[in-house]
Amino acid sequence: MSEYNIPSLQTLIEQFERLPSIGHKSAIRLAYHVLSLTEPEVQKFTEAITDAHKKIHRCKICCNLTDSEICPVCNDEKRDRSTICVVENPRDAIALEKTKELNVLYHVLHGVISPLSGTSPDELTIKELLGRLSDGTVKELIMATNATVEGEATAMYISKLVKPMGIRVTRLAFGIPVGGDLEYTDEVTLMMSIEGRKEL
Amino acid sequence: MSEYNIPSLQTLIEQFERLPSIGHKSAIRLAYHVLSLTEPEVQKFTEAITDAHKKIHRCKICCNLTDSEICPVCNDEKRDRSTICVVENPRDAIALEKTKELNVLYHVLHGVISPLSGTSPDELTIKELLGRLSDGTVKELIMATNATVEGEATAMYISKLVKPMGIRVTRLAFGIPVGGDLEYTDEVTLMMSIEGRKEL
Repeated sequence: MSEYNIPSLQTLIEQFERLPSIGHKSAIRLAYHVLSLTEPEVQKFTEAITDAHKKIHRCKICCNLTDSEICPVCNDEKRDRSTICVVENPRDAIALEKTKELNVLYHVLHGVISPLSGTSPDELTIKELLGRLSDGTVKELIMATNATVEGEATAMYISKLVKPMGIRVTRLAFGIPVGGDLEYTDEVTLMMSIEGRKEL
Repeated sequence: MSEYNIPSLQTLIEQFERLPSIGHKSAIRLAYHVLSLTEPEVQKFTEAITDAHKKIHRCKICCNLTDSEICPVCNDEKRDRSTICVVENPRDAIALEKTKELNVLYHVLHGVISPLSGTSPDELTIKELLGRLSDGTVKELIMATNATVEGEATAMYISKLVKPMGIRVTRLAFGIPVGGDLEYTDEVTLMMSIEGRKEL
């Protein structure tokens, strides 16, 4: 006797195991939880999944996720349309929006160039980004990809494509995180913070 | 701009948050993962949920989960029908089956008596258990509820109901876990292991 004697339970566990950061034991717990739900609760859960997947798609302009044709940011007339902030994924855009520092447009790449995991530039939304730059409105691109090797490489790749178009390309500053302790900061970050030092 | 600007995404995140041991950040990650799936993948996922929930129910005899009317254990003619091992939930039965020590029938309570979380004896499958004892086949009940206050209380409660019927009621032994270190064993467990000491 095990959960594997019941094929539909086994399938459900396998499906939960496919989710990110859900291991075998968590998948079993989640599967049993689903079995303990009432019929309407299960329906609400599956409907939420189907509904979100059906309604949410990429904004025609910035490729961020939205349930309308054009996302609220691209539709916002108060935004500075001369600057586009390029991010890896929608969550990065949300994190930047929370700072309330930027009042610009975004472009979501949906990934980074990564030879190791086999993501080539064609799989990102770089073509869509270049399309947005053709009419001359955009004067600056803020590369806000992550401070990883892949994030850096992607920023460099796009920068090389865009600079010849006469558009300014900037990169988020690297340095010691605010509240950070020099003693516990890694050498590369320290090096970057020295290189990027500013006049007081 | 946040995930809350998209109602269907917000609903999906809320639904994931209802699952056990899934916090807000995990729920957001899971929701974005769902959005990244293909149409057939989403369909497989929701179908697995609906299918398992529809097909799996309680065995008519032992109340364990099964997709047939009577579960394979209750149907197994090689089982010793004079002993029933009483467990809190199906996973406990699976854990005991893995030891291959028992060749008995089970009874799944689907919970424990807990005044704090408001679970009364009526909500457990105690009535079904008593029904199984009426024909005199069962000679022993092994109380295999967890070693918690609630597990103990439930074992005591059932024991008081069953003993007058002339049925032997036993309880799993408490003691030091095999491979356990006395130094790191809690006092109550140590006390139990002294009380339950055996002649060598």
